[in-house]
Amino acid sequence: MKWYEMQGKDKDVVISSRVRLARNIDGYPFPSRLDEKSAQEVISKVRAAFGDAYTYTDLTALTPLEIRGYVERQEISQDLANAKGPHGLLTSDKSGVSVMVCEEDHMRLQCVMSGLALKEAYELVAEADDVADSALDIAFDEKLGYLTHCPTNLGTGMRASVMMFLPAMTMSRQIQSLSAQLQKLGLTVRGMYGEGSSAEGCIYQISNQITLGITEEETLDKLSKIIDQIVVSERQLRESVGKNDELCDRIARAEGVFRYAKMISSSEFMKLYADLRLGISTDITQGISFEKLDSLLVRVMPANLMLESEQLSADEKQRDKLRAEKIRSIIG
Amino acid sequence: MKWYEMQGKDKDVVISSRVRLARNIDGYPFPSRLDEKSAQEVISKVRAAFGDAYTYTDLTALTPLEIRGYVERQEISQDLANAKGPHGLLTSDKSGVSVMVCEEDHMRLQCVMSGLALKEAYELVAEADDVADSALDIAFDEKLGYLTHCPTNLGTGMRASVMMFLPAMTMSRQIQSLSAQLQKLGLTVRGMYGEGSSAEGCIYQISNQITLGITEEETLDKLSKIIDQIVVSERQLRESVGKNDELCDRIARAEGVFRYAKMISSSEFMKLYADLRLGISTDITQGISFEKLDSLLVRVMPANLMLESEQLSADEKQRDKLRAEKIRSIIG
Repeated sequence: MKWYEMQGKDKDVVISSRVRLARNIDGYPFPSRLDEKSAQEVISKVRAAFGDAYTYTDLTALTPLEIRGYVERQEISQDLANAKGPHGLLTSDKSGVSVMVCEEDHMRLQCVMSGLALKEAYELVAEADDVADSALDIAFDEKLGYLTHCPTNLGTGMRASVMMFLPAMTMSRQIQSLSAQLQKLGLTVRGMYGEGSSAEGCIYQISNQITLGITEEETLDKLSKIIDQIVVSERQLRESVGKNDELCDRIARAEGVFRYAKMISSSEFMKLYADLRLGISTDITQGISFEKLDSLLVRVMPANLMLESEQLSADEKQRDKLRAEKIRSIIG
Repeated sequence: MKWYEMQGKDKDVVISSRVRLARNIDGYPFPSRLDEKSAQEVISKVRAAFGDAYTYTDLTALTPLEIRGYVERQEISQDLANAKGPHGLLTSDKSGVSVMVCEEDHMRLQCVMSGLALKEAYELVAEADDVADSALDIAFDEKLGYLTHCPTNLGTGMRASVMMFLPAMTMSRQIQSLSAQLQKLGLTVRGMYGEGSSAEGCIYQISNQITLGITEEETLDKLSKIIDQIVVSERQLRESVGKNDELCDRIARAEGVFRYAKMISSSEFMKLYADLRLGISTDITQGISFEKLDSLLVRVMPANLMLESEQLSADEKQRDKLRAEKIRSIIG
């Protein structure tokens, strides 16, 4: 089961929580300077360390469309998709953890969970980290902590992030000041697909920026407390939604478009998604769950849409039709 | 039962047919120059002529909103609504004919029927004309025919018109040339609410312009033949609608808005009405009848909306809400 198909805490405001750890094996250069042979060695060691519980996917053997599908599902980063040398992905449905191999670091262990579940995600990823640690010689320095390719990851090597749905803050234009405040607290706010992406669908990724001189627990504590506050503020702002006739009309129409349109572009989808998600969270929209709606976030993105419907050469217009069909079939 | 609630011939292209006869009583000036006393005399004579089968409504006793309701339902003309002196309306559900009393002429006998039914409407109105003729001294000249206030009505005093729904001709921009052609044939093309009104909802009124030197039968024959041709052309143009993805999407979305929106303005209503009516006539839209849709043409207009919902002081925004509710309740 995918994270977006699961129920989760504070789902009205927090779509998902993610924790990832950057780890490298001692004695090997970072992937950017690994030759082919050494890269294969690193991959073999990582695969061996995680054992049979994990399945390895050699990403270099996949089509660009399949790779794009992984990125859309947020199973791999754009950096891993772009990687030149040998690289792949270890996955384990049972552990809930996946490992990007030879991205910027030798290993990027990650876990995504539905709703607000930073500590739960960390526990799972820490367990997997123990597995790696017991089998591999992990690059670690007493002063600098875990050694990583990018100095911004030195220390814990941990990036914890939550994907938040903040329509009321967006409409009331409080996002800019929130973003500035969070920066002062050592946090980063970005759009759904990471750095530089815009906040389509009122979706924001909030993550820790600091990894050095702070423990994992402190980072998660601090982030969780701030997220809790944002959840409260967003909910307060949403209390007036039902009294706003124009907004109620927009929300109601969004459902009409989802249920009736024959073609929906991705950018229109994101707007309608945001309207409907706000509708569900304010009880204006009935009969559509967060889980169904959030699964669309992945399933109507171009590559996943083409892969799921086996129309691998669909052009934009054909995708707009497939998207409308898919939406109808999922929201039922 | 109102015309718009009935089935009719060629309903996909012809919304309704109307025939009206202008008649005056000999020995009285036209209404514009009638004094109060003489006007009351004229009204009494007309009422007496039509007898108990007809109900008289003294329009001067109604509120402006109620008057507006009559105009929206096309039961009276804007001219009658604006009349300064005594004036009223005789109606008879049984005969299907109504008589505007002291509009521009002493009597305007009219009959509206669903779909293409010019001859049927004429027969009914001619029967009522016989009733008037046998009881009153109708102003008639051997050379000029029926004498009327406006010289453009001299002769038969008959205006026959059809309200046509021409979305395909509108979209393919053939309306302008059609309009020019029809003018050469002695016909007039106007918007839904008569002279000067725009063709909102792709609705056009086509009527005879000539009343002198031609019989009623010739006029109706000529008009019917031309309407038949327009019906054929419009239907041909509609054959490609189903292959136009953008148009199919627009039609499907129109139903979504009708079923989900919380506020709909009159001008948006007219656009959606046209999209849906085209959808019904091309089998793209299922489960909504022409009768239900056409009844909206009257029932969601401002005055009728306020009167039906007994919200006599509703402002524009409140009407937009009432309109959305009414549409949902009627299309079911």
